Amino acid sequence: MNFTERLRSVQRRTKSLLCIGLDVDPRLIPSHLRGSVIEFNRRIIEATHDLVCSYKLNLAFYEALGSKGGDTLAKTLEFIPSSIITIGDGKRGDIGNTSEQYVKALFDDFGFDAVTVNPYMGHDSIEPFLRKPERGVFLLALTSNQGSKDFQRMKIANRPLYEHVALKAKRWNVKQNIGLVVGATHPRELKRVRALVPAMPILIPGIGKQGGDVWRSVQYGCTREGDLAVITASRSILYASRGKDFAQKARREGLKMKMEIQRARELPSK
Amino acid sequence: MNFTERLRSVQRRTKSLLCIGLDVDPRLIPSHLRGSVIEFNRRIIEATHDLVCSYKLNLAFYEALGSKGGDTLAKTLEFIPSSIITIGDGKRGDIGNTSEQYVKALFDDFGFDAVTVNPYMGHDSIEPFLRKPERGVFLLALTSNQGSKDFQRMKIANRPLYEHVALKAKRWNVKQNIGLVVGATHPRELKRVRALVPAMPILIPGIGKQGGDVWRSVQYGCTREGDLAVITASRSILYASRGKDFAQKARREGLKMKMEIQRARELPSK
Repeated sequence: MNFTERLRSVQRRTKSLLCIGLDVDPRLIPSHLRGSVIEFNRRIIEATHDLVCSYKLNLAFYEALGSKGGDTLAKTLEFIPSSIITIGDGKRGDIGNTSEQYVKALFDDFGFDAVTVNPYMGHDSIEPFLRKPERGVFLLALTSNQGSKDFQRMKIANRPLYEHVALKAKRWNVKQNIGLVVGATHPRELKRVRALVPAMPILIPGIGKQGGDVWRSVQYGCTREGDLAVITASRSILYASRGKDFAQKARREGLKMKMEIQRARELPSK
Repeated sequence: MNFTERLRSVQRRTKSLLCIGLDVDPRLIPSHLRGSVIEFNRRIIEATHDLVCSYKLNLAFYEALGSKGGDTLAKTLEFIPSSIITIGDGKRGDIGNTSEQYVKALFDDFGFDAVTVNPYMGHDSIEPFLRKPERGVFLLALTSNQGSKDFQRMKIANRPLYEHVALKAKRWNVKQNIGLVVGATHPRELKRVRALVPAMPILIPGIGKQGGDVWRSVQYGCTREGDLAVITASRSILYASRGKDFAQKARREGLKMKMEIQRARELPSK
């Protein structure tokens, strides 16, 4: 089964488009856990795994743990049921023989189902990640941050760079395992991108803390079938409480978001 | 001392623009080392440290070592004399709070002197790396691979995207700690970029295995003062021999390259 079909089937089974970003800063977790990111993640996953289609792990947060980072990442992945899509969010990409090393680390060793890749270096930097049809690659198109205006919005032949990324991604998508990243903070642009790529997965970060809007992310980000948008929130769920009830509060926040997404999916108008 | 001055002073002292890329694949090292990348790197550094201004470590190769990766990276950095510039080549970049995590991992924990950063996400993704003037950031402009044509060469207002990166980098360079990456495989474009940024460091990979030309890289990549080009070779030096003499052969290859660079620096014409 290729990645796109796989994501679709997981979203159907879980009845969820929600992805929780496990981007954990040990300084922000409840003090009674004494800095154990492994224990924090275990509790968060235990409390939320029936609410999500995916967990996204931003690799920077694990690298920042130093020598404990690799082990924390590996253990966290073990807690996640294998039926849920795991995304290694490292925005990697390098010349071919180097991207192959990232493939080894992220797909073969850690076993992520999908990764995020920065498109700037072009096709041969992305190709090594695409070899297995069941593993997904989300290419950065229009990111959720301010700096997205610096290069991503530059116009080439009347079309912003991020739309050129979308169109090339579509052409390169022969194994049906490419998706795009479009920030929830850019709803109009998300709508345009979805029109360009009617059948590709779109990872949509920026809900919650970054101010993106759930309703428009779902309405504009989904396919006609109402799926393949992956709506991602991180800090608003992880740090819903910093007390002993952090896992219950995270569940409550996740459930609220899942239901909000569900309502937006059920609205007829597009 | 800011990064640019520091690089200049190291290049003056070492009389070298050569950077060796320690991008080590354990399957390619001499069999008598039984896969020990640490021992391989120790011997290579011991044999070449008086030939270089810098060592560049591509992080992908260390991540691909799995649980041994972090330790191998840390030990390798310990072998490098502190007077030589170390570059953590991971082509990172993410939204601000995430780039801060990479800063912690690469600058604070591993202690790299400089890193490579992918510019696609714009200023706020790069800014956290720029806070310490003595630490350098090489932004990808025109990379050495084929795929550089896919987006980097797209024309915006009659100027290719990579030149826009160069011009923005110049504007953002208030602490004199930004450099650019331009592949040795694009000599004419390197000449144009150097004209746009007459006083910024340029990291020039792609010599050796990838076919870039030393002579033109030096002539076109240096400043008027004949410095701030960082000429990088990896596989042609590391794997000059796969026998017990690998370190001597690596030294011989490195010395040849250093002298070739030196001759090109001394040629009057530009």
